[in-house]
Amino acid sequence: MTAVYNFNAGPSALPKEVLQRAQAELTNFNGTGMSVMELSHRSKDYEAVHQNAIDLLKELYNIPDQYKVLFLQGGASLQFSMIPLQFLKEGTIGNYILTGSWSEKALKEAKIIGNTAIAASTKDQNYQSIPTANDFQFNKNDAYVHLTSNNTIFGTQWQDFPTIDHAPLIADMSSDILSRAVDIEKFGLIYAGAQKNLGPSGVTVAIIRDDLLEANVDQVPTVLRYKTHADSNSLYHTPPTFAIYMLNQVLTWVKEQGGVSEIEKRNKEKAKLIYDAIDESNGFYRGHAEKDARSLMNITFNLPTEDDNKKFLAKAKELGFVGLNGHRSVGGCRASTYNAVPLEACVALREYMDSYRTGHVRG
Amino acid sequence: MTAVYNFNAGPSALPKEVLQRAQAELTNFNGTGMSVMELSHRSKDYEAVHQNAIDLLKELYNIPDQYKVLFLQGGASLQFSMIPLQFLKEGTIGNYILTGSWSEKALKEAKIIGNTAIAASTKDQNYQSIPTANDFQFNKNDAYVHLTSNNTIFGTQWQDFPTIDHAPLIADMSSDILSRAVDIEKFGLIYAGAQKNLGPSGVTVAIIRDDLLEANVDQVPTVLRYKTHADSNSLYHTPPTFAIYMLNQVLTWVKEQGGVSEIEKRNKEKAKLIYDAIDESNGFYRGHAEKDARSLMNITFNLPTEDDNKKFLAKAKELGFVGLNGHRSVGGCRASTYNAVPLEACVALREYMDSYRTGHVRG
Ligand SMILES: Cc1ncc(COP(=O)(O)O)c(C=O)c1O
Ligand SMILES: Cc1ncc(COP(=O)(O)O)c(C=O)c1O
Ligand SMILES: [Mg+2]
Ligand SMILES: [Mg+2]
Ligand SMILES: [Mg+2]
Ligand SMILES: [Mg+2]
Repeated sequence: MTAVYNFNAGPSALPKEVLQRAQAELTNFNGTGMSVMELSHRSKDYEAVHQNAIDLLKELYNIPDQYKVLFLQGGASLQFSMIPLQFLKEGTIGNYILTGSWSEKALKEAKIIGNTAIAASTKDQNYQSIPTANDFQFNKNDAYVHLTSNNTIFGTQWQDFPTIDHAPLIADMSSDILSRAVDIEKFGLIYAGAQKNLGPSGVTVAIIRDDLLEANVDQVPTVLRYKTHADSNSLYHTPPTFAIYMLNQVLTWVKEQGGVSEIEKRNKEKAKLIYDAIDESNGFYRGHAEKDARSLMNITFNLPTEDDNKKFLAKAKELGFVGLNGHRSVGGCRASTYNAVPLEACVALREYMDSYRTGHVRG
Repeated sequence: MTAVYNFNAGPSALPKEVLQRAQAELTNFNGTGMSVMELSHRSKDYEAVHQNAIDLLKELYNIPDQYKVLFLQGGASLQFSMIPLQFLKEGTIGNYILTGSWSEKALKEAKIIGNTAIAASTKDQNYQSIPTANDFQFNKNDAYVHLTSNNTIFGTQWQDFPTIDHAPLIADMSSDILSRAVDIEKFGLIYAGAQKNLGPSGVTVAIIRDDLLEANVDQVPTVLRYKTHADSNSLYHTPPTFAIYMLNQVLTWVKEQGGVSEIEKRNKEKAKLIYDAIDESNGFYRGHAEKDARSLMNITFNLPTEDDNKKFLAKAKELGFVGLNGHRSVGGCRASTYNAVPLEACVALREYMDSYRTGHVRG
């Protein structure tokens, strides 16, 4: 078959080596004679995988000792509610920085639970940019400040994170976790669905600072308390064992590649190829994001007309490119260049964009 | 290697054929050149799997048209909270029938949300039995009545389900879903974590009658509303795609085996082998459950002394039996004979129990 270039926005490409290893041991894990899916979550064999995944993430992402790594279910969407359920008490404010659809959704869920505010928003500019720290409106009684580090749909990304002192900073890093070095200490809580950079869908990672585990949670369902999962090392109830096994495989792969610094270097290289195709197209391809807000993970662009977009995408599909359609809500084109997307795929896309523009493959 | 007999209580054995098929196509699903884990949940290839799993469960379990099948995250444990969040309104009562640890946990979570009652309980008899319908204490303002169809830890199971008219009957069927024919119409809502009879951990199935989707949920987080998932065919946000793929494979296997009636027949045969070993042991093996409450899924028993239990379990482990330890909270021995546990494993266990009792393998 012809090559497949997987640019899906999530669930998305996984490293080929990881899939091959999972395949090789799918019916017999570690000499147990059983699939990893058939192991009890209380077994020594499974617990080693679980612990290794926690330890590897701490090591690779440089997570300080005063943070816990948790494996949760329910996707990032459940985090939108778990956060206010936990921290948004009477008399406090959940303060949201809006940079795209996902931050809007996070805010919407907080409103169901308590009082909220908008610290800053770039909605007026159709989310082409990231607000600057001068624009933030804080309140003394902010329970937390929430931001979305990478905007999967609009293709923008925070380049630097603000230092926030008056309240814990919480970040949805679903679409750029582990794609670059991050100063974890700026955050009280980081969360991410695994299905972009970490593994298959079905497990959500949270990195939480110990003091946030002291929130009063008497009225919160037990399974929706971070403390429940922290106290049980994410074994309070049955975890999504296979998803965590795959996460462990992906983390092992990241380490083998040279760790986050090497991954970050490659991500820059990969994204540059496609941004160059845009910037050198004399306006044929128009990037959605402002240059200083460009995402290394989701590259969003449009052709001159809607009809051009359609033709470009149809031809791309024929050539083996998968997932280049923009999100249903905004249209256009989007290339998601997550950690596991190989350089070759980006080279191929760049070439296709050039050839398409110059009419060579338009047919 | 020697044979492995997997009697894990969950996650537990999966059909060998299912694992082999998953292995064969793990890196290239349906000729896509991608793993099923790498597909977008909005792709035609994934959506076919998702829909097939829904349709197959409806067909195999004889689910009437006025019910929806939902795929959720968070395990059965999150259902313990989703149910009262949804249905337990001011002035109503969540009424629980207690038959074991899991029903106690379900009740505990409901208490965090609203007012509860205990319709019946066999706790006084150390959960060796199932209450009879005469014992139920109902209230006019019951929001629902909740029961646990099979008690994974104590090894008891409802043989017939009561007909309840004044409120919807809700059942946690985590450890016996699809193990026998059930009259779905007796229930307003059935839920089950997949990791015993349906697939790997990480997906929870709910079967909900349409009228229950009309509950007032304005104050409930969007992702914790059954209606959200019903309205989007369980694609409101990223589902645990690989777990659902495996569920679809397991359902396909159940159909190939001859459907639920054939599976039920085999489950009876399998359980009988082990109960016979108990009943014919002159009291050497003592079953925990009363005979008319015995589970076909979890067979719990003790040897004369704690020391005997230990030796029996240690020797069993040497011989390739996995997961025969009773739950941490009760000790003793437990054989979980879920749908995917083959007859051979139960024959082997029966033989081992006989040999051990007569001293032949005690060493
Ligand atoms: C930034 C961001 N947040 C949240 C979500 C929602 O995640 P989930 O589908 O796991 O609930 C997504 C999904 O694409 C996302 O990109
Ligand atoms: C009857 C029953 N209910 C609930 C649960 C909890 O399920 P989960 O671990 O998926 O939350 C279990 C787990 O063994 C169970 O057996
Ligand atoms: Mg998830
Ligand atoms: Mg966005
Ligand atoms: Mg689950
Ligand atoms: Mg029980």
